[in-house]
Amino acid sequence: MTGPFAISVDDVRAAQGLISGALARTPCLPAPRLSALTGAEVVVKYETMHATGSFKERGAILKLASLTDDERRRGVIAMSAGNHAQAVAYHAGRLGVPATIVMPDGTPLIKIENTRGYGARVILNGETLAESQAEAKRVAADEGLVFVHPYDDPLIMAGQGTVALEMLEDHPDLDMMVIPLGGGGLGAGCAIAAKAVRPDIDIIGAEAELFASFDNATHGRERPIGGATLAEGIAVKHVGALTLPVVKALFSHIVCVNETQIEDAISIFATWQRVMAEGAGATGLAAMLAEPERFRGKRVGLVLTGGNIDARMLASVMVRALERADRIVSFRITTSDRPGLLGKIATRIGELGANILEVSHGRLFIDVPAKGVSLDVTVETRDAVHARELLETLAREGYSPTRLDPRGLSGA
Amino acid sequence: MTGPFAISVDDVRAAQGLISGALARTPCLPAPRLSALTGAEVVVKYETMHATGSFKERGAILKLASLTDDERRRGVIAMSAGNHAQAVAYHAGRLGVPATIVMPDGTPLIKIENTRGYGARVILNGETLAESQAEAKRVAADEGLVFVHPYDDPLIMAGQGTVALEMLEDHPDLDMMVIPLGGGGLGAGCAIAAKAVRPDIDIIGAEAELFASFDNATHGRERPIGGATLAEGIAVKHVGALTLPVVKALFSHIVCVNETQIEDAISIFATWQRVMAEGAGATGLAAMLAEPERFRGKRVGLVLTGGNIDARMLASVMVRALERADRIVSFRITTSDRPGLLGKIATRIGELGANILEVSHGRLFIDVPAKGVSLDVTVETRDAVHARELLETLAREGYSPTRLDPRGLSGA
Repeated sequence: MTGPFAISVDDVRAAQGLISGALARTPCLPAPRLSALTGAEVVVKYETMHATGSFKERGAILKLASLTDDERRRGVIAMSAGNHAQAVAYHAGRLGVPATIVMPDGTPLIKIENTRGYGARVILNGETLAESQAEAKRVAADEGLVFVHPYDDPLIMAGQGTVALEMLEDHPDLDMMVIPLGGGGLGAGCAIAAKAVRPDIDIIGAEAELFASFDNATHGRERPIGGATLAEGIAVKHVGALTLPVVKALFSHIVCVNETQIEDAISIFATWQRVMAEGAGATGLAAMLAEPERFRGKRVGLVLTGGNIDARMLASVMVRALERADRIVSFRITTSDRPGLLGKIATRIGELGANILEVSHGRLFIDVPAKGVSLDVTVETRDAVHARELLETLAREGYSPTRLDPRGLSGA
Repeated sequence: MTGPFAISVDDVRAAQGLISGALARTPCLPAPRLSALTGAEVVVKYETMHATGSFKERGAILKLASLTDDERRRGVIAMSAGNHAQAVAYHAGRLGVPATIVMPDGTPLIKIENTRGYGARVILNGETLAESQAEAKRVAADEGLVFVHPYDDPLIMAGQGTVALEMLEDHPDLDMMVIPLGGGGLGAGCAIAAKAVRPDIDIIGAEAELFASFDNATHGRERPIGGATLAEGIAVKHVGALTLPVVKALFSHIVCVNETQIEDAISIFATWQRVMAEGAGATGLAAMLAEPERFRGKRVGLVLTGGNIDARMLASVMVRALERADRIVSFRITTSDRPGLLGKIATRIGELGANILEVSHGRLFIDVPAKGVSLDVTVETRDAVHARELLETLAREGYSPTRLDPRGLSGA
């Protein structure tokens, strides 16, 4: 390729022809509710709508199409417990190419079964991703398999870049594109394509604060990398050698978002767009909510990269969002052990329009006076005003409620 | 109109021109995972992707466009606590037409606030929908407002019918269309349009078993109507006078689905299509799962009508689906009160690869022998096989677990 980077827009354009024959085009639609929320004019590209629920299929298709007959016969290998594994396994299965996926020990059985369901061989090996990666390289060398890197490969970058071409075809007048950054395959591919089509467009990256690898690398910072993040799809310690120069040159800014902002974004996608967003997928919206002044009044293309969020995780995130909004509140009532108290208080809460979700009624706790009773109640209210009124009314009526910390849904 | 029904396909075609100028076209995409699950070739029309999350905006736009200048000035009125209210309020607000929405007493504050947020006046009146309806008619007469019926209106039917035209433009070769039936506005409009474009297409209705109003009316049955259903969007007691003849003449079959089937369909949409489906919206998929032989091998267009499901309800449905699949299991261990039992059992469950979600540890329950202890544990497992292995291992090691009924998430 001529030009400063591993690929040029011509590679992305070539990829588009191939990919549009193999994949249904994902929708890119105006999101009036997100526009009202952010003050920007937002369109969302729903990469959740691929068969395996993420944009990773684009690069996988291009890589698989590039194999020689001999390579196709021997097969491919990838290391991932996530969207990359599903994408490679699914399209290899569809094309009759043998696929091997190496996953770390302890990968949830459901993910293993899904991958096997696409016809792939699954090897469980390694305590960490690095160990699994080493095993994948070893098996690739032993068996002559083509290793499919999740991001640092020109074909993967070109495939993912088709997201930006499709967005600008559907909405040519975007001022900005907001793209989650993990290893940078999607970000680099999209930036190269978008800047070629529309040189004045601003490309904004979104990273999880706990894995601010690109923000570190582009600014020469050395903040620690690691921790438990909801955005495990972009929890990458080492940015790509091919992707970093592109991000450095073509991205206007990187927004680092914290876990609460990611949770809020997941919850907003579910509530207002009726779509499941995985943590990594929601970081773009989280970035818009974290630095609203940057986006206000602009036409913003937001890439929702994937929707593979565990059912219980989504439930937990949504309930926690309700707790933060005081639509679910917990409180303790400690009082003398009057018979019938539980019935009385439960009736009163119902009269006040709240819905009891959980009650824990104890007479033995050591911090309760002898003959005292302690009642922990979790209720659903209409909103924060209703919650305050409920607690004030109970206090006025002598029940002395003490607010408890919310507990989340699953202790997560 | 000439022809046997209140509208003809020409009315739907006329509606399409107007609606395509006002609404972003919703995607209609192949769903390979639903195809694998059902043995049919499924495409899904995502009516969840409208600003207010349902197809109701189509009819509302057409009705609003039909107003005379005088009617526009005086305004419109509708009765609904659901999608129809949101659709009328939103588009009236957008077009500067005054809107009044009558909702039953006790409507959740969040819905009232959303409706007011679109600029509508909200009147809370009536213990039941029938009482609210009477109030709406009274206010309409008093103030000279145009009443917008949710389904029994030729304009509403024509507007909703554009769903079918769009689907057949995108996928002209559909063998069947599966459409949820409430009052029948969507079903009648789509059937008239689809049968005109493609006379040999089969139109299949989906009704909640508890509100099988069309199944009753078309078959002369009198099964009781009513009950608590997740599909409140189609919980209609009286079918439309204009819609019934269409359903009778043009529908091949109506599938009645029960609440568990609706829950499973909601959960499948969330897990495999990464989209929020409200109960009514999911009944089409529930119908395919209830009578699979009817759909196997066919090209099926499935209308996902709406995505307005409450966060906690979705969470509850998804957790209950996990419980039915034995991915969340509860059991009780009753034993002599050995010190340290809780620690031992918790450690052992962790070693066996399960994740403890909830523990209730009691020494006072009257059905426990003196000096006995009862421990109720809820765990997450990888799948049903893992759950069985866990319980068998604990039994072999002398803990004697007794399986408890699952509790759902919120007692819903």
